[in-house]
Amino acid sequence: MSYLKMGETELLKEKVINENVYAGYFDENLNLAMSRGIPNHNMIELTAKKFSTIDVYTSRIHKDGTDLGTYNQGLISGIKEIKELFSEILSIDEANLIIGGNSSLNLMFDMFSQLMTHGNCDSSKPWCKEEKIKFICPVPGYDRHFAICEYMGIEMINVPMDENGPDMSIIEEFVGNDESIKGIWCVPQYSNPDGTVYSDETVKRLASMETKAEDFRIFWDNAYSVHHLYTNSLNEVSNILKACKSAGNENRVYVFASTSKISMPGSGIAAIAASVDNVEDILNRMRKQTIGYDKLNMLRHAIAFPDKKAVLEHMKEVADVLRPNFEITLETLNNELGDLEIAQWSHPAGGYFISFDTKVGKASRIVDLCSAAGVKLTPAGAPYPYKKDPNDSNIRIAPTFPSYEDMKKAAGIFCTCVKLAALEKLTGEN
Amino acid sequence: MSYLKMGETELLKEKVINENVYAGYFDENLNLAMSRGIPNHNMIELTAKKFSTIDVYTSRIHKDGTDLGTYNQGLISGIKEIKELFSEILSIDEANLIIGGNSSLNLMFDMFSQLMTHGNCDSSKPWCKEEKIKFICPVPGYDRHFAICEYMGIEMINVPMDENGPDMSIIEEFVGNDESIKGIWCVPQYSNPDGTVYSDETVKRLASMETKAEDFRIFWDNAYSVHHLYTNSLNEVSNILKACKSAGNENRVYVFASTSKISMPGSGIAAIAASVDNVEDILNRMRKQTIGYDKLNMLRHAIAFPDKKAVLEHMKEVADVLRPNFEITLETLNNELGDLEIAQWSHPAGGYFISFDTKVGKASRIVDLCSAAGVKLTPAGAPYPYKKDPNDSNIRIAPTFPSYEDMKKAAGIFCTCVKLAALEKLTGEN
Repeated sequence: MSYLKMGETELLKEKVINENVYAGYFDENLNLAMSRGIPNHNMIELTAKKFSTIDVYTSRIHKDGTDLGTYNQGLISGIKEIKELFSEILSIDEANLIIGGNSSLNLMFDMFSQLMTHGNCDSSKPWCKEEKIKFICPVPGYDRHFAICEYMGIEMINVPMDENGPDMSIIEEFVGNDESIKGIWCVPQYSNPDGTVYSDETVKRLASMETKAEDFRIFWDNAYSVHHLYTNSLNEVSNILKACKSAGNENRVYVFASTSKISMPGSGIAAIAASVDNVEDILNRMRKQTIGYDKLNMLRHAIAFPDKKAVLEHMKEVADVLRPNFEITLETLNNELGDLEIAQWSHPAGGYFISFDTKVGKASRIVDLCSAAGVKLTPAGAPYPYKKDPNDSNIRIAPTFPSYEDMKKAAGIFCTCVKLAALEKLTGEN
Repeated sequence: MSYLKMGETELLKEKVINENVYAGYFDENLNLAMSRGIPNHNMIELTAKKFSTIDVYTSRIHKDGTDLGTYNQGLISGIKEIKELFSEILSIDEANLIIGGNSSLNLMFDMFSQLMTHGNCDSSKPWCKEEKIKFICPVPGYDRHFAICEYMGIEMINVPMDENGPDMSIIEEFVGNDESIKGIWCVPQYSNPDGTVYSDETVKRLASMETKAEDFRIFWDNAYSVHHLYTNSLNEVSNILKACKSAGNENRVYVFASTSKISMPGSGIAAIAASVDNVEDILNRMRKQTIGYDKLNMLRHAIAFPDKKAVLEHMKEVADVLRPNFEITLETLNNELGDLEIAQWSHPAGGYFISFDTKVGKASRIVDLCSAAGVKLTPAGAPYPYKKDPNDSNIRIAPTFPSYEDMKKAAGIFCTCVKLAALEKLTGEN
């Protein structure tokens, strides 16, 4: 029965019941990590088994005779084989690709550094010479994106997400009238944390909208392009680079991707894709920054994953390990909270998160209650710029790391905390 | 007999002889790469053999139980084992160390980016907000250092090197009076290209000199700390971090090092060392920039090189491969040019280069003559800021890459070109 329909006596009774359940958790001395999107042991083992059979040191000579075990600034944009792989996965020409190191976040951060010190090929001056720079941040979103903006002193503007992506009417209004708005963050497929896949219409409008800033850039963090939970629904967000080109805004977007959640998190391969002018702009910086990223790790990946088909097969195995954690969580949420009318949550078809919204504005209280009982969640507010959730409503659930048994426990505890926080609110306790 | 003592007839005769020798090279269709400090195949094989027996994927669990095959921002400054190794090699406490990715150049570049956008812990404002920034550049020096300054719009000031390092009197005069001078580049041991080892006195003066800029920084690129050519002369430059601390200027220096020329060039491990305040300053940026560098490659290195002793033994094997190339070059230079009084060159005890100076200001002509005959040298001027050698005298010889046979050929051709260029000059041509 909905809490919203209960009288005070019923609510207080329900509260006592849940307080007792909650108190019981303390006997278990739990320590369950659900704060970040970290792959679990069994997922990583799938790659470890493949990589442990590959010796790139003995067989490090490239098919054209080049030794990949030494410097080669001619390969600054990556070795051929790994470019072919990313090209196929992202449906983007090799000429538009640069392969990086072990972190797409690093590529994004470096892009911001470059924009601050030099601007881009459409800028009249470095961004650090501008009086003010602003960025559009669809919310809820990825805390590490917002942290980069905050570090760079870039003012962030919240724009709400709906089932098609960020609210395009609001964005068009903003970027069409304010030339200090220089860009937008997007996680277009299985967005963090909503799991939203941007609609074709959203992609088209982002690519074609008028922007007052001539050097406006979309940071397109396509982190979950092959990270499907269900093989009957292989979502693919429409190709933003092509859309921008068609709209005459070829330079508008930087696309980021990585194998971090395909192969080894922290030891994978990252990539950036953009127009040829942007690529040249980035390489001009990279040639000063490095002689090149780790080509042997690129080779290792190219051997383990010769083509997109191999990646999709591997990701099917990964999904088989990961899916039960999502299902356990969703089932628990449904069983425990389904009728109470105090919360709603996403049902993602891929990606790494379940986005949870309380209807009673008690997200931080829930996170604190969970933490005290041994379940570490992402801090409330984290999915918002400056860590400020205006409604204190959103919690990012990261169900990827725990074992199935831990997941069951954690989901149960979470639901008890959601109920307790709501009951505190509804019974007038602050 | 010295060219300087020859009459015109003798010089012209000598010129014809060398022109004929030179013309003969064209029949060989040579293509010998000596432009960059690239380790040769046999040096790399020494590491490849070690690495090919190590499987970090199956045995990736750290001694404290941590899985190094996944994200762990708690290890942002590197895994324990590799910190221990760099700590021992550099005689620097682990608390002062941050382990990076595959490139110390990348760490240097990122440091400059950070200084431009944020300054350092002693800055009153970001360097990009300063009207002008200048750097001291000991010359000849490393072109990639100068390229970073040029990219960042930092004005470079040449200071000559002598057998003890850069001329300290000139430097003290500059930095003591101009607050726009924010730093200096140094390759303190087996300097690029001179092979100079900074004297203890030089290190002390750098550490203790008064600088008008409060946020002055020494970029201490200790690229060749264990790269000895002769095992009877294990030079070790004095510890700049300790010297700065003693002088009350603890924050003055960033020390850089890497295994690029110990293990696999392009797939090694880089590190930065600095005061605790600097380390915190850098980590504050890195935490926004990445979840961490490749921990499995760190583990691979720590297994292959458990301590400094293992590194030194390995570097002895490397030196055995490399030394003949230096000896062939030096012997050829001595035999061919020793009496002519048209040039002088360094006799390095370690590092990667021989620094060559013509006394007749014809460096670029020599490089062009060599190039036409199939020997690719570092462009003349490269060891100077803005690629401008004021005397057109210095050539950086990089004898690390060729096979012994190629090295003999290349050294011979080089000497012929040196003679030809001098004879052109001395006979009044050009």
